[in-house]
Amino acid sequence: MSELTFAQAKEKAYTELREVKRWFSSKGWFPATSGNLSVKLQLPEDAEPVFAITASGKDKNIETDEDFLLVDEHGHAVEQTHLKPSAETLIHCELYRHTDCGAIFHVHTVFNNLVSELYAEQGFVPIEDIELIKAFNIWDEGARIEVAVLPNYADIPKIAELVEDAVKRTAADGALNVPGFLLRKHGICAWGKDAFAARRHLEAFEFLFEYVYRWRLLNPERK
Amino acid sequence: MSELTFAQAKEKAYTELREVKRWFSSKGWFPATSGNLSVKLQLPEDAEPVFAITASGKDKNIETDEDFLLVDEHGHAVEQTHLKPSAETLIHCELYRHTDCGAIFHVHTVFNNLVSELYAEQGFVPIEDIELIKAFNIWDEGARIEVAVLPNYADIPKIAELVEDAVKRTAADGALNVPGFLLRKHGICAWGKDAFAARRHLEAFEFLFEYVYRWRLLNPERK
Amino acid sequence: MSELTFAQAKEKAYTELREVKRWFSSKGWFPATSGNLSVKLQLPEDAEPVFAITASGKDKNIETDEDFLLVDEHGHAVEQTHLKPSAETLIHCELYRHTDCGAIFHVHTVFNNLVSELYAEQGFVPIEDIELIKAFNIWDEGARIEVAVLPNYADIPKIAELVEDAVKRTAADGALNVPGFLLRKHGICAWGKDAFAARRHLEAFEFLFEYVYRWRLLNPERK
Amino acid sequence: MSELTFAQAKEKAYTELREVKRWFSSKGWFPATSGNLSVKLQLPEDAEPVFAITASGKDKNIETDEDFLLVDEHGHAVEQTHLKPSAETLIHCELYRHTDCGAIFHVHTVFNNLVSELYAEQGFVPIEDIELIKAFNIWDEGARIEVAVLPNYADIPKIAELVEDAVKRTAADGALNVPGFLLRKHGICAWGKDAFAARRHLEAFEFLFEYVYRWRLLNPERK
Repeated sequence: MSELTFAQAKEKAYTELREVKRWFSSKGWFPATSGNLSVKLQLPEDAEPVFAITASGKDKNIETDEDFLLVDEHGHAVEQTHLKPSAETLIHCELYRHTDCGAIFHVHTVFNNLVSELYAEQGFVPIEDIELIKAFNIWDEGARIEVAVLPNYADIPKIAELVEDAVKRTAADGALNVPGFLLRKHGICAWGKDAFAARRHLEAFEFLFEYVYRWRLLNPERK
Repeated sequence: MSELTFAQAKEKAYTELREVKRWFSSKGWFPATSGNLSVKLQLPEDAEPVFAITASGKDKNIETDEDFLLVDEHGHAVEQTHLKPSAETLIHCELYRHTDCGAIFHVHTVFNNLVSELYAEQGFVPIEDIELIKAFNIWDEGARIEVAVLPNYADIPKIAELVEDAVKRTAADGALNVPGFLLRKHGICAWGKDAFAARRHLEAFEFLFEYVYRWRLLNPERK
Repeated sequence: MSELTFAQAKEKAYTELREVKRWFSSKGWFPATSGNLSVKLQLPEDAEPVFAITASGKDKNIETDEDFLLVDEHGHAVEQTHLKPSAETLIHCELYRHTDCGAIFHVHTVFNNLVSELYAEQGFVPIEDIELIKAFNIWDEGARIEVAVLPNYADIPKIAELVEDAVKRTAADGALNVPGFLLRKHGICAWGKDAFAARRHLEAFEFLFEYVYRWRLLNPERK
Repeated sequence: MSELTFAQAKEKAYTELREVKRWFSSKGWFPATSGNLSVKLQLPEDAEPVFAITASGKDKNIETDEDFLLVDEHGHAVEQTHLKPSAETLIHCELYRHTDCGAIFHVHTVFNNLVSELYAEQGFVPIEDIELIKAFNIWDEGARIEVAVLPNYADIPKIAELVEDAVKRTAADGALNVPGFLLRKHGICAWGKDAFAARRHLEAFEFLFEYVYRWRLLNPERK
């Protein structure tokens, strides 16, 4: 793949964010201006990493000229702008640091909030033997995954400190880790090597969470 | 912000109403011609307040040239028109009188009806420690809010009389008040300093009500 | 209102059907080519009644030049066409005969199927004191309505025979009748003086049925 | 019907796939790049069968020039292409071999996953006396159908081996077979004589599965 100029890499990242934003909006995944999205710019390997991220406080269901800005690996704006990066940019920075992902999407949905609360004390949501687990490139028959549930501190840096462990934790009982974690009664962060993969992962998580919740409704006593 | 002419202020309010109407329609929030929306015109400070409001009996899922009209602080039309303001205009008037809000949105949804009935006797819906509470600019960790549930009198002036108390009530147990209240088995009224904020508040309420209902389904006995 | 030519009346009815069809399609109310819609042509009072109705077997989610045809009060085509009127046209004919309605809409939804089965033995769905009942022009505080549930015979003429009684039945206990009835595990027929009113009624029914079902989920034992 | 050239038959099949894909996408039936669709080309009777099928790994919610390719009855590409047929093409091939269908649609939904798990041990989902069963051209009053639930092997050829039996199985107790089966915690395969019929069947299945799940919620103990 030939190298892009900075301007081209920026345009590519903004286009990807715009398309993902539109699609998630159509799903109702940005209630009350919540949610944030980022994509890593495809720059030469020796360049400092730069991320395109949604601006803070905007309604992600609307398209404007001020939806996105560029930040460096510390979450600081790299171009002059009056826009502020999302308050949760620090979580994105930690994820880019501790994974090799190229895109991170964070949304609030009723189902991911419900499931995060259902499994908060256990610390992870166990999901087993559902075909859509293959969306994470896990192909074993009957595969079991665990999605970590992190506490939802009001202080974002305190959450950011938990990211490295969440990414690296050894799954118990042979369960397989997956490219995402839940924040309790808050939402999901999902990532992938590029925007396409991160979108596929997020859609799989939301499907699985809705399944987990609806299945539990049939069996309220049993876990 | 430079002053607008009356015509400009009217056009701005109508445009905002049109956009909010379209968005809420896409959510299915105007069943059976229900719901009403208003925005305060941005006039010079010494001018009498004027509000743009949806006309009565129209299907808010359709766009026509007769969707809105202007009313004064008593709910009377301020321009000659055959349109009638929504029957619930009096509630809007009371809210503009007792808050400093710039927009008020009222919709009927199945989830807000269900939650209003679940908590009708208690008089308020308690909601605690969900991230989306931040949409109300409440940033405390573990914050708890209470959404008042008012009785749904057929006589609108009787409801209007309750508005002042609902807005001013001191929250019990340190719970924080929020820019909205429920009418029992009827719907939500949410407000904000402008259309953008009121929309964010309404979306947050609807998210929270769906969460409250779905969580209760898992625990039908416990409140 | 000045008189329309036959061609104008036909065009008006087709336009109304097209708009209602598009809207209900966006709601997912035409699963598996089900559902049918009719509107009475606005002809001179001494003219034989003519109805525009959806053609049988078409997917109502798609727009074609062959979506509708005209039938007389016996359900026979009044213009030469290879289209067949919906198999349930007889039910429409009976409703036009025994009410003064101008439009009839019939759709299958999961919620109307569920509620029809929940209350099949009782013979009607009781609904009380929900604001949206006002969509039927019933304004009493705490109003209670009953929606009849008819058996779903495979033989349409047998259903048609039940229509007159369903329309005229005296509501027990002061409950108010409403412009619609359910067919058990089949769907709703709703009507109104024109397409606008029939649409409002249908939307109100669907809202109320979803409420009834979701409320019952919280109280599975109690009726 | 006059014969089509190969190019015309291909274009017709691609157009049908494009429309079905767009419609199912609007329903949310392609989560996480899942799902696949195929249509048989309408070729002269003595020609080898050729099927248009969705390419593997694509997001079916997006339209590109590389959404479909042509395969023969063994699932091999019949035109030079870098596209790969869906991994589940073998299941389509078996269905075309053992039925006279002209289109096959496979989607993952939360409701079809839930119902497949609910009835996995029994081996089939019993559904009785719902009007929408008529979408399968079954017109008996009170008709009862059974939808087979097959195990979801990771090894697709092992699933393909089960297809013939699933298609031919004699329904127990007079239940009627239907043009579709479930894969456990995976999804539905539905077919029909053409794209129109297969779409109608799939929509009916999804309606019925949602009904079955929601009805069971009211009666968690009883099966």
